[in-house]
Amino acid sequence: MDYGKYFSADVPSFLRSPVREIFRKVDLSAICSFAGGYPAASTFPVEQIPGLAEKVLSKYGTKALQYGATQGVPELREIIARRYGVPVSQVQITTSSQQGIDVCSRVFLDPGDIVLANNPVYLGALQSFKAYRAEVEPIGIDTTSAKFIYVIPDFNNPSGKTMTLEEREEIVRIARDLDVLIVEDSPYRELRYSGEPVKTIRELAPERTLHLGSFSKIFAPGFRLGWIIGPEPLLEQIYVCKQCLDLCPPVLDQYMAAEFMGSGALDANLEKTIAEYRHRRDLMVGLLEKYMPEGVSWTYPEGGLFLWLTLPESVDTVAMYDEALSKGVAYVAGSFFYTDGSHRNTMRLNFSFVEEAKMEPGIKTLASVVRNRLVNR
Amino acid sequence: MDYGKYFSADVPSFLRSPVREIFRKVDLSAICSFAGGYPAASTFPVEQIPGLAEKVLSKYGTKALQYGATQGVPELREIIARRYGVPVSQVQITTSSQQGIDVCSRVFLDPGDIVLANNPVYLGALQSFKAYRAEVEPIGIDTTSAKFIYVIPDFNNPSGKTMTLEEREEIVRIARDLDVLIVEDSPYRELRYSGEPVKTIRELAPERTLHLGSFSKIFAPGFRLGWIIGPEPLLEQIYVCKQCLDLCPPVLDQYMAAEFMGSGALDANLEKTIAEYRHRRDLMVGLLEKYMPEGVSWTYPEGGLFLWLTLPESVDTVAMYDEALSKGVAYVAGSFFYTDGSHRNTMRLNFSFVEEAKMEPGIKTLASVVRNRLVNR
Repeated sequence: MDYGKYFSADVPSFLRSPVREIFRKVDLSAICSFAGGYPAASTFPVEQIPGLAEKVLSKYGTKALQYGATQGVPELREIIARRYGVPVSQVQITTSSQQGIDVCSRVFLDPGDIVLANNPVYLGALQSFKAYRAEVEPIGIDTTSAKFIYVIPDFNNPSGKTMTLEEREEIVRIARDLDVLIVEDSPYRELRYSGEPVKTIRELAPERTLHLGSFSKIFAPGFRLGWIIGPEPLLEQIYVCKQCLDLCPPVLDQYMAAEFMGSGALDANLEKTIAEYRHRRDLMVGLLEKYMPEGVSWTYPEGGLFLWLTLPESVDTVAMYDEALSKGVAYVAGSFFYTDGSHRNTMRLNFSFVEEAKMEPGIKTLASVVRNRLVNR
Repeated sequence: MDYGKYFSADVPSFLRSPVREIFRKVDLSAICSFAGGYPAASTFPVEQIPGLAEKVLSKYGTKALQYGATQGVPELREIIARRYGVPVSQVQITTSSQQGIDVCSRVFLDPGDIVLANNPVYLGALQSFKAYRAEVEPIGIDTTSAKFIYVIPDFNNPSGKTMTLEEREEIVRIARDLDVLIVEDSPYRELRYSGEPVKTIRELAPERTLHLGSFSKIFAPGFRLGWIIGPEPLLEQIYVCKQCLDLCPPVLDQYMAAEFMGSGALDANLEKTIAEYRHRRDLMVGLLEKYMPEGVSWTYPEGGLFLWLTLPESVDTVAMYDEALSKGVAYVAGSFFYTDGSHRNTMRLNFSFVEEAKMEPGIKTLASVVRNRLVNR
């Protein structure tokens, strides 16, 4: 049977995530993966989960297993509202921050619309924009058909870069000039290892910013919970859209997240996570210095999960990938994050997921693969 | 600020769920709600949940809290595949069966496309089709621009009706004639209280059917888990789409569902649930017989959660709603399920959610409101 004729006109624009495709084919435990944006398993509060479930069920009873409000359970919305200093009415819980991106795409984008975003761009966002047949253009361009600016101001995925206050103010100025919205994707903001926090774009322009938060890096990604903070007239349409998407976010998970956050356990766990990730970042940077050949440079991120490597022009990280994988090391080629597929001499390295003991052999192997390419060009 | 200009062209087609709107404004515990499709809280395995969480975490460790595969965790897919006699490759786990409907809409529908469905139609499905600007037309019509047929063959929501084998074969014949897909929405199939199971449409036409299942009525809706069984080439695009939607379904919840299902606890719980619901169905029918004035008729469903009431032509259930609510009874006006808003003399009554003790006063009140309308016309 030929199924091609049944698909919508959007389907040819669906992109597969190269990261998810890597994970589909490879047993992660058998290799050294610098590829995904997976948090360290050691940061998950495994021991606390059954107790959390028990506490939540004795507190809320069957309500924790029933359908919940589309906006999210009030207890979780209130804790987030308090934490970030906004009214509860400006908080929508999402079933993952990826859903936050997708619901913004769905509510704002039509085919041919423009999203303004500076390369390199987070893959999950690119996938979502493209799936609605929107075009992604650089933030500087002169356009009247843009719908919103998409940015990850803190510890960007993939570049690791953090925007200065001036750069954020510039984003706001452009958004106001063009009269477009801003989608501020902020899954890593709480993971700062050095330097001082900078104001969020939402704080600079609350009237036009949808701020996306995530529990994946501060609690556990298996819960698939995130949130959107934004102006009520925008959240109202997102709320109606979310009725179609999945009626409501997972309810027991939300109560568990609320309990974990409200009791202070989240902040205690976060402190340990930050210490662990700071150490891993510095470890990876040290290993890159030790093993990488001359001509390779990398970012030194103040937080988040990623380093961005730039290799000599002659090294093609897409072409090099199979060799690296065959030697047991995975990464994501940088060009996947470029809307035009350029920058084939770059790569994204994640330092949060790999066990510490695997990091040195992993970077050593990766460096030898790079070195090989330099010799063989 | 005027936010209207930012929205996509789809947004004016977004429908609010009247059911969800009722629940947004009303404290369910303060009224007698026959409105939603909520399962009885008494059927939730509350006591078993913390133990399930503990078991799953000791079995799978941090894997249960990490990102999971987009298709769903293998353990859950395998159990579903075994239960329904299909290969694992034909099972996609969804974050709720509502997501199943939405992802089918997204992957197959373009603006102006036709979905074939017989009135009355499940609201969540109508919302999703309309949100993609598809039109819903009756299954009989002669058309070449239909994309799929949408049906709930078992214990239909809202009508309570179950299709005979001949009716299912007729659906398949039409689908093959028109060369369209079939979306078989099947959240209630396991809840049969009388009569004999009829073959699923998927069993009759596996090559063109997407069969949507749900954990909401056999485990607990707070988990937001469902599944799609269908041909691999269709699931492949649904898989890519799901990467955009939320990367993967909730992982801990999936493992808990797998454990609950795999251990036999689900079937034990289901047996009790069926006995409870059978009793409630019969209780409600008895109460309707006792209290409803002449000229009111209802369906006697073989399963599921709903009865469908037809009142004398002069009674407008939309107009009557505020009076009923002010007296503490909620229902859903039947016309909301009609694509043309007709059948204003019908209503859907749910018998699974309301505490048993509330059922008699609830039906008595509802009957008096109906009687009032008959007198006052």
